[in-house]
Amino acid sequence: MHAVVLDSYGGPEVLGVRDVSAPQPGPEEVLVDVVATALNRGDLLQREGKYPGPSVLGVDGVAYEIPGMEFAGRVASVGTRVSSVAPGDQVMGIVGGGSYASQLVTHERLLLPVPGGVPLADAAAIPEVFITAFDALVLQGGLTAGRWALVHGGASGVGTAAIQLVRAVGASSIVTTSTAKVERCGRLGADVVVDYTTEDFVAVSKGATAGRGVDVVLDMVGGSYLPRNVSAAAAQGRIVQIGVMGGGPAEVNLGVVLMKRLQIIGTTLRNRPVEEKIAVCRRFATEVLPRFERGELAPVIDRRFPLAEIAAAHAYLAQNTSVGKVLIDVQG
Amino acid sequence: MHAVVLDSYGGPEVLGVRDVSAPQPGPEEVLVDVVATALNRGDLLQREGKYPGPSVLGVDGVAYEIPGMEFAGRVASVGTRVSSVAPGDQVMGIVGGGSYASQLVTHERLLLPVPGGVPLADAAAIPEVFITAFDALVLQGGLTAGRWALVHGGASGVGTAAIQLVRAVGASSIVTTSTAKVERCGRLGADVVVDYTTEDFVAVSKGATAGRGVDVVLDMVGGSYLPRNVSAAAAQGRIVQIGVMGGGPAEVNLGVVLMKRLQIIGTTLRNRPVEEKIAVCRRFATEVLPRFERGELAPVIDRRFPLAEIAAAHAYLAQNTSVGKVLIDVQG
Repeated sequence: MHAVVLDSYGGPEVLGVRDVSAPQPGPEEVLVDVVATALNRGDLLQREGKYPGPSVLGVDGVAYEIPGMEFAGRVASVGTRVSSVAPGDQVMGIVGGGSYASQLVTHERLLLPVPGGVPLADAAAIPEVFITAFDALVLQGGLTAGRWALVHGGASGVGTAAIQLVRAVGASSIVTTSTAKVERCGRLGADVVVDYTTEDFVAVSKGATAGRGVDVVLDMVGGSYLPRNVSAAAAQGRIVQIGVMGGGPAEVNLGVVLMKRLQIIGTTLRNRPVEEKIAVCRRFATEVLPRFERGELAPVIDRRFPLAEIAAAHAYLAQNTSVGKVLIDVQG
Repeated sequence: MHAVVLDSYGGPEVLGVRDVSAPQPGPEEVLVDVVATALNRGDLLQREGKYPGPSVLGVDGVAYEIPGMEFAGRVASVGTRVSSVAPGDQVMGIVGGGSYASQLVTHERLLLPVPGGVPLADAAAIPEVFITAFDALVLQGGLTAGRWALVHGGASGVGTAAIQLVRAVGASSIVTTSTAKVERCGRLGADVVVDYTTEDFVAVSKGATAGRGVDVVLDMVGGSYLPRNVSAAAAQGRIVQIGVMGGGPAEVNLGVVLMKRLQIIGTTLRNRPVEEKIAVCRRFATEVLPRFERGELAPVIDRRFPLAEIAAAHAYLAQNTSVGKVLIDVQG
């Protein structure tokens, strides 16, 4: 197969495609012909050597560090105990790594069907961001109909998924983004959009909720946002931290956390054990995937690159001008 | 009735007993003749005007700020819809305020029976600290058999309750305290006692758990303890913050919170709405009270004062030399 292998860490220039030995499925695993993969912020950190990913073991016995955390494709072959999919089936999913490749191996129960109406090559824009947003907002944040969510990074991959999910579950959203992306977030279904370059999201959150504050905060910024998230939260609110793009070190007034009875919840998808990933994928399949078929949710694709241009794709994502997902076409 | 009424805020000298009009029970409420009450740290803050409590409305129509968050006593009379208790029954419970008095009114469903074997006048040492420890460790912290809890302030009222509860549910404890109280915490059932004046609780926590860290942290210190609690916690650990005696402002590395998938949970009993207080009291009655009758749990009483010496009792608690609860005998 061909794949992007991290032989060294650094800028986008370290990324190149070469031929390597494909991985082999175990008894409960599936070999997938990858049609498309997508970029995640974690990929940029991994490329720089700051977020190590798992190795992919080729049939030649060599361990390759291949980035890539999601994919859409077709089942190529299945392990001896696999019963839920067959060669040729269209599938998508999350993986700890290895999707910047024309083939990958994953556990049968981590696979998701491609929802009807979504082209196979677009489905790679779904798994990571919609599962992350569902897990963070609903499973960990406790978001239900009638509640308010504050979604930071509204134009990011996770943000565009979160805006749609909040609306789909019957809740309301306050969404932060930069000036150029305000209008786009509104069209995706945000109830209130905050231009963080000119507005204070704490004041807007209080105003939109009659002073009560928001029930759930979905944050990938961290740093100086934490004390402001604490201020924006309602009593018994939950702040779900899925990233620290603005820095890990933060200040927090525990007295306010205590009196408001807040929860600050750190979470990542990638470093969970397989059984937890399966559990969230199964709930996602049951509770969220039907919403794509009903048209309540749709992947948001900013731009596509062929795998050969993976370095240019990384450089593009780092510019922070994209809205939604940057896709990589692996096979046509 | 006679009661301690806060007519002004300040040092212990503002506390004095006087005669005031008793409150009147509503249809679902109970009038209790208070036999004993107990001190809580929050009482000291309330006395200083830093933690406002609810007022008690006398039958004369005057609202009195009477401190006191727990009691043991006998039912004096009941409202028209009350069915679970009758005059003369021995009861105990938590209240938002008003227990520094010879009578108080509370909701029927907030009342707890006094466990067999516990003298009525000692039962006032149970409600606040055992409910707080149960709620924080088990209901919010998720402590179950086989797990590890880090309990700060091991000789405090909540600490002495927590040490016993951890053992009673089949979990293990690492307990911090000062030199003079180390031996006492061990006798109460702490598995590992850390003298915080000479030892580092992070290192001890790691050592006791083979490097894994603790599953639940019960903390009333805050401040500089937060980053150390984060270090001491295992993956998916929960830090339950029930106080900020070391200061509210704290630093936290959200990157670590995220990678470990920690939860930082702020909680208080007092400022919850009545329905939530009832819910935790009902679970406490079912799941914890039988353990007192079986001898697995016992109130820890440091010293008793008569109500007339309430100022001396406050001054004594502030010295931080007590182990367990300081009780106030209201009626003998």
